Parts: sequence; C-alpha cells; structure tokens
Amino acid sequence: MQVTVIENVLKLNDEIAAMNRRTLRDAGVFAIDLIGGPGCGKTALLEATLRRLQGELTIGVAVGDLATTNDAQRLLRHSPHVIQINTGRSCHLDANQVRQAMNQLPLHELDVLVIENVGNLICPVGFDLGQDVKVGMFSVTDGDDKPVKHPPLTNASDVILLNKIDLAPYVDFERERFLAGVRQLNEKAPVLELAATKDQIDPWLQWVKESVAAPAM
Amino acid sequence: MQVTVIENVLKLNDEIAAMNRRTLRDAGVFAIDLIGGPGCGKTALLEATLRRLQGELTIGVAVGDLATTNDAQRLLRHSPHVIQINTGRSCHLDANQVRQAMNQLPLHELDVLVIENVGNLICPVGFDLGQDVKVGMFSVTDGDDKPVKHPPLTNASDVILLNKIDLAPYVDFERERFLAGVRQLNEKAPVLELAATKDQIDPWLQWVKESVAAPAM
Repeated sequence: MQVTVIENVLKLNDEIAAMNRRTLRDAGVFAIDLIGGPGCGKTALLEATLRRLQGELTIGVAVGDLATTNDAQRLLRHSPHVIQINTGRSCHLDANQVRQAMNQLPLHELDVLVIENVGNLICPVGFDLGQDVKVGMFSVTDGDDKPVKHPPLTNASDVILLNKIDLAPYVDFERERFLAGVRQLNEKAPVLELAATKDQIDPWLQWVKESVAAPAM
Repeated sequence: MQVTVIENVLKLNDEIAAMNRRTLRDAGVFAIDLIGGPGCGKTALLEATLRRLQGELTIGVAVGDLATTNDAQRLLRHSPHVIQINTGRSCHLDANQVRQAMNQLPLHELDVLVIENVGNLICPVGFDLGQDVKVGMFSVTDGDDKPVKHPPLTNASDVILLNKIDLAPYVDFERERFLAGVRQLNEKAPVLELAATKDQIDPWLQWVKESVAAPAM
C-alpha cells in the first residue's frame, strides 16, 4: 500500500514537472535546479551571479526554504524576479510549488530560471521540477568526502560546483580526493571551483552563458 | 489515503522508538540523537569526544550515512563500539535501524550511545529514535541564519552546538545574530561553541558528563 501511494505522488509530481518543462521551453527559459547542503553558498552564488550578469541575461529565481524570506530578500537587491517558496517542514521542492512560483514570474522576459532548492543533499534529488539541468553544489568546508557520501546527487548532477575554495588553507580538504569521489560516480559532469563571496565565479558564469546559448539537454 | 499511510509509518516508528528507549534505560545507557547538516563536523566531534573521554565513559556510536563506511572507520580508531548504518536513499535514521544497531552493541557495557544521524537539518527531526536528548549541530561556515531557517530542529533541540568557531575570522558570521535566531525558537537550550578539529570541545564534554550523571529528560 505504501509503495503505491508514494508511486502515485511521484507520478503526479512527474506530470507537473513535464508541464513545467514544456512551459519553460515554450517561453525560451533555461531552467537550473540548484541543489546543495545548508550553508554551502547557494544564495551567495546567486547574488553574485545576478549582479555579474545584469544587462546580459535576465534571470529569475525561485528559492525554497522551510521558513523565512531571508534568501529572497538578499536576491531581490539584484533582480526583481525572485519568488520565495516556504515549504514548512518539507525537505525539498516539488514540481507543483515550482509551478506556482513560475505563475508569478514574467517567464517570457526571462532567459534563465534558477530554482534554488531547500538546503539538503538528499531529498531534492528525487523530485523532477521541470529543469533542464541539475547542478550539485558542495563546499570545501563541508569536507572532501561529500560526493561519495551522497551518490544520488553526485550521480544525477550535470555540473558539480565546489564552493568556498578561498577557505581551503584553513581546513583539512584534499582536492584530489574530492575530484576522485566525483569521478567514481559521475564520469562526465564538469567540476567548477568557486569562491562565491569573493566573487570568484567566472567558470560558473561562463557555463551559464554557454548553456543558455546552446542548451545541452 | 496518503495521510493514513504516513501516520501508520510514524506510529510504527514511535512504537519501536519506545522499545529502544526502554531497552536503553534498562541498560543504563544515555542516548543522544546528534542531528546536523552534511559537513558540520559531527564525526570530527565524535572522534575528539571518544578520544578525550576514553577511560572515563564507555561510548557507543551508531552512525548513519547514505553510503560508505568512512565515518565508522574514522570512529573505530577510538572505540570498538561503532556501527555504520547505510540508509541508501533515505534521508534520516529510523527507530528500527537504530534497534538493529543496538542489537550489535554491548549495551550493558556502555554509558552513552550517540546516534549520529544522516547529514540533514530537516528530515531526522521528525523521527523519534528512542534517544534521551536531541542535539542540534550547526557550524560557523554554514552561516548565522541557519537556526531561523530550520525551526523544527532549533525548536526540538535540547542542546545546540555551534562548531567551527576557529573559522569565524575568515567568514561573514555574526555570533549575536546566530544566538538571537536560536532564542527566537528555543528559550532554554544551552548553546555550546566548539572547534572540534582543534580539540576545543570542553563545554560539550562537560555537558555529556553532567547528563550521564543526572539525565535531565
């Protein structure tokens, strides 16, 4: 009985995700599902991204958190197209929540929609939102073992971000061990090394611009 | 239908948790559910704890991860009483998994059982495991906004740990904002500031020893 119910929930989610995907493609919006642990720097990355790409790409953001509108407030300084989704106790965004956010955004004006998922390396991976790509984000301060400890995310990511490389001198982090962990589970995804709060995000900006110009999926 | 099923799952979990609690109390074991995000330093804290309390308290650990036995291997250097639980895709430990681990530990020799939950600030909060206390763990590098962004954990914690205070000089972290966020949701829990990898864990060791001597719950 339980399995059937969960399958139905996932099936409904997948149907709405497929609708989202069609809507986004029809509007010419490249959609990114950004998944990372709490505090890995997702919002900091988006703040810098919105600021740096202003005038070049029009970017909307749907940002998920259990509570508070902190993240949306931070992002609204850099773009008017930001929707906060509060999930209460839910540990991930689902396709319907993203659809509600999409309904409040001027999709035809956007080049990119970034869906900043709830801070969590596990649950968000299983829910299709209608995105073009999944971006898995880790940080140096969270340790070099995180990719192998989170196979579903590492495996499902089209791109892997390693943030906070500016803090590497102060912690015990082996870059080669991190990269080997990624490659053990994902042969293809590029690994981009960033320091979002230091504005060192050029490889990411380049990847976003290239992806918008010629979506790979 | 979905609600009923989920209620049944939770009811079964609660029944097993109650069994665990009785078993642990009969054996005179103080049980801690340690909940924190991925990479906040849970295993580093336990490594230092096992080493520092050796000969003083006998501590068992049940450690949850989606994959790998990395954490158990790190902890086995300091205690023979370590069980790794691999949850596959599951984002939290449940009472039955803890019961299986308990069955493999010499409970009557233990003073303390630490259940290191899967790295996740959200899902573990809702599942009783039979613990005496819940310990919520945050880190300086994850940001001063995490308590207010995770009300269920902040609210449910008997103690709050703030780890990686040695890294405060290198990141944008306002201690007062963190503490105010905790107090907004939890009036009572002590907040212990630690640097686990620098062996600065004395407030925690003192709290553990006092709790074992006179469990508050």
